Amino acid sequence: MSVDIQHQPLSVSVGLIGPGLIGKALLRQIEQQAEKLLTPLHADKFRVVAVANSRQMLLRPEGVNLATWETDLAEKGEPLDLDRYAACLASASGPLPASLPGPSCSVLVDCTASDAVSSRYAAFMRQGLHIVTPNKKFGAGPLKQYHELRDLAERHRRRFMYEATVGAGLPVISTLHGLLETGDKIIKIEGILSGTLSYIFNTYKPGMKFSDVVADAKAKGYTEPDPRDDLSGLDVARKVVILARECGMEVELESMAVESLVPAALRGEGVSAQQYMEALPQHDGDMAAKAAEADAAGGVVRYVGCVDAENGTASVTLRTYPAGHPFAQLSGSDNIVVFTTERYKDRPLIVRGPGAGADVTAAGVFVDLLQVVRSHPRA
Amino acid sequence: MSVDIQHQPLSVSVGLIGPGLIGKALLRQIEQQAEKLLTPLHADKFRVVAVANSRQMLLRPEGVNLATWETDLAEKGEPLDLDRYAACLASASGPLPASLPGPSCSVLVDCTASDAVSSRYAAFMRQGLHIVTPNKKFGAGPLKQYHELRDLAERHRRRFMYEATVGAGLPVISTLHGLLETGDKIIKIEGILSGTLSYIFNTYKPGMKFSDVVADAKAKGYTEPDPRDDLSGLDVARKVVILARECGMEVELESMAVESLVPAALRGEGVSAQQYMEALPQHDGDMAAKAAEADAAGGVVRYVGCVDAENGTASVTLRTYPAGHPFAQLSGSDNIVVFTTERYKDRPLIVRGPGAGADVTAAGVFVDLLQVVRSHPRA
Ligand SMILES: NC(=O)c1ccc[n+]([C@@H]2O[C@H](COP(=O)([O-])OP(=O)(O)OC[C@H]3O[C@@H](n4cnc5c(N)ncnc54)[C@H](OP(=O)(O)O)[C@@H]3O)[C@@H](O)[C@H]2O)c1
Ligand SMILES: NC(=O)c1ccc[n+]([C@@H]2O[C@H](COP(=O)([O-])OP(=O)(O)OC[C@H]3O[C@@H](n4cnc5c(N)ncnc54)[C@H](OP(=O)(O)O)[C@@H]3O)[C@@H](O)[C@H]2O)c1
Repeated sequence: MSVDIQHQPLSVSVGLIGPGLIGKALLRQIEQQAEKLLTPLHADKFRVVAVANSRQMLLRPEGVNLATWETDLAEKGEPLDLDRYAACLASASGPLPASLPGPSCSVLVDCTASDAVSSRYAAFMRQGLHIVTPNKKFGAGPLKQYHELRDLAERHRRRFMYEATVGAGLPVISTLHGLLETGDKIIKIEGILSGTLSYIFNTYKPGMKFSDVVADAKAKGYTEPDPRDDLSGLDVARKVVILARECGMEVELESMAVESLVPAALRGEGVSAQQYMEALPQHDGDMAAKAAEADAAGGVVRYVGCVDAENGTASVTLRTYPAGHPFAQLSGSDNIVVFTTERYKDRPLIVRGPGAGADVTAAGVFVDLLQVVRSHPRA
Repeated sequence: MSVDIQHQPLSVSVGLIGPGLIGKALLRQIEQQAEKLLTPLHADKFRVVAVANSRQMLLRPEGVNLATWETDLAEKGEPLDLDRYAACLASASGPLPASLPGPSCSVLVDCTASDAVSSRYAAFMRQGLHIVTPNKKFGAGPLKQYHELRDLAERHRRRFMYEATVGAGLPVISTLHGLLETGDKIIKIEGILSGTLSYIFNTYKPGMKFSDVVADAKAKGYTEPDPRDDLSGLDVARKVVILARECGMEVELESMAVESLVPAALRGEGVSAQQYMEALPQHDGDMAAKAAEADAAGGVVRYVGCVDAENGTASVTLRTYPAGHPFAQLSGSDNIVVFTTERYKDRPLIVRGPGAGADVTAAGVFVDLLQVVRSHPRA
């Protein structure tokens, strides 16, 4: 009988919350690939069974139609109810401990940027769901909840995966995970982890006005509507927290050293995005001085997230790098992550490329999803 | 009952063939990590049950003592018998179809460079073994056998993994696999895939003698005892074949365009390694002309493996790259792989770092081993 069980194909059920830029791209990719993945995954079904945005949800245990989900959600969607949503998704694999054990696997994919969904990860997992997300809110959220979810995942043999939170589709978390699991010791991880700030500092040269470069990046759509959301360093800091925790460090976002690039006078909510942009030129001198100093030493200024695992510290700061350094050679809006470890000590392991965008980010989520399915305990 | 099965821990049995530079490092890493991996793998045993070199084998179904295996193999080893070796390793998981199904998983790790072992992969897999290897012989061997093993793996739910064959511990094959599985289209993969040739071309500048640089690399131990084994391009060609096949291309090593850097007159077996080194200076003009031409155009010469998936061709050639190109910025003996795909079209995904060495290569093998264990069908 067990032999039969072993060879019974798996039924994979995916629930997506947040069909925005990334979520939509993911649905397209799943639509394109699901059929082809059945054989390599030893599955007979790979279906999206639920889709929800902030207002509505579409529950289709028999499978959402991926060609028409958008109008179906808009026209036939029910009001969002996360309890019913999770129950529907979980019913494919049964609550834990499995009352109806069978080869099935349910994965919740959170493609929102909110914490309304992530605050429920633990409850979802108790219902038997795996969690996959590009959303940094949980991974960089309170440490206590983070550890609780990890423990829960281990006990219930469920997974919480978030490759796309750092570097989008670039293999960053998985690479780090591989180093750690095989017993390497991380010395430090340094990264340029914001496409926006990568572009800004790859473009900015002594003699230019920093405010012009920010305005240019904003005009090209590289920044958030309010560029301070990038220049505050908060987004980079979240990524650094995620990497640091992966290394076993007990880091909280709030206590991390983050050098904001927003002048102190322009930080408050009292200053609008427009006022910020208008006032920025008055502060060009600060950055000009730093860039000139770096230039005089033959280097460049970069905005870098750093996990210093040897000293147990994590930070986000402006730093100067010599011209031959991989950070100095960066161009466009590329992200780059440099792993220095006991094994990669003299020469680091480097991953580089675009760290944002719909398709590459969705692919980062999708890769996690496939890992989850492959490692799902089958019985 | 199935619930019990689901929560029964897995018993992992590893058999190593070839405890040389890489194999030894792998045994050390397993010794260090096995205990810690039990919980994340939901396993109760992670044991090496067999070790063999070209003459002897040590079969210990209860587990090889990883502190004393080397003397145990030398003193208590039996003559090598691959049939008995495989039977011992497989008995942990039972032949296929499973006669004694249980949560157990047997993995053969081939750390030889021979094809005496790889020619038996299919037979091993039929006995229920997964195969993990840094050995390029099979992956770049005859296409027919390659496809047969892939088919067998799919049918028997066994895996054949070889991350360490390209770039050693760098995440190259896994990255490519992720791109393909999520539906990205590969346009081309270009790489500097030999640490030796990376070092030689990163060092060689117009005005230098190419033969001096080769002699220096040899003196530093960067080349094979006979540097022609590196400079022939055969090793790089094998890696390119492996990458091309991963992309679905039907490539044979023999029919690939490989530009040997060994002058035609010095290729035959009639020429010893020493005679080659002595005669090399007479040929310095060839490379000098190429380097001068590249230099005049503001570029550099690099020895590059290329999978052109759009045109269905694979090659290993000397090429010229502009100064700003990632290949031109390389230093030391780093490997680098650049993936240009439909999603990473304007800006590629790049992985860079040391592509050889005992510990990093062993870690590449180990990462595969853990993937195999995680995805092993449990029943
Ligand atoms: N964009 C990138 O390149 C990139 C890269 C890496 C990581 N990420 C991360 O990926 C996630 C998604 O980014 P995105 O660019 O796709 O965002 P987006 O386009 O703004 O989409 C967000 C989606 O989440 C939904 N949503 C928001 N709050 C919700 C709630 N409380 N309950 C249910 N649904 C809710 C929204 O629905 P409504 O339409 O109803 O508001 C929308 O469908 C974010 O966490 C982001 O940080 C993005
Ligand atoms: N070195 C690197 O940095 C690197 C990087 C990537 C990939 N690799 C690959 O990793 C593999 C191992 O490399 P290595 O440097 O560890 O080689 P190595 O030090 O020469 O070790 C080879 C081992 O294989 C054994 N062996 C050879 N033929 C055998 C046979 N027919 N049956 C059983 N055992 C046999 C040898 O045993 P004896 O002692 O009895 O001869 C020895 O233990 C090679 O395929 C290599 O291409 C190496």
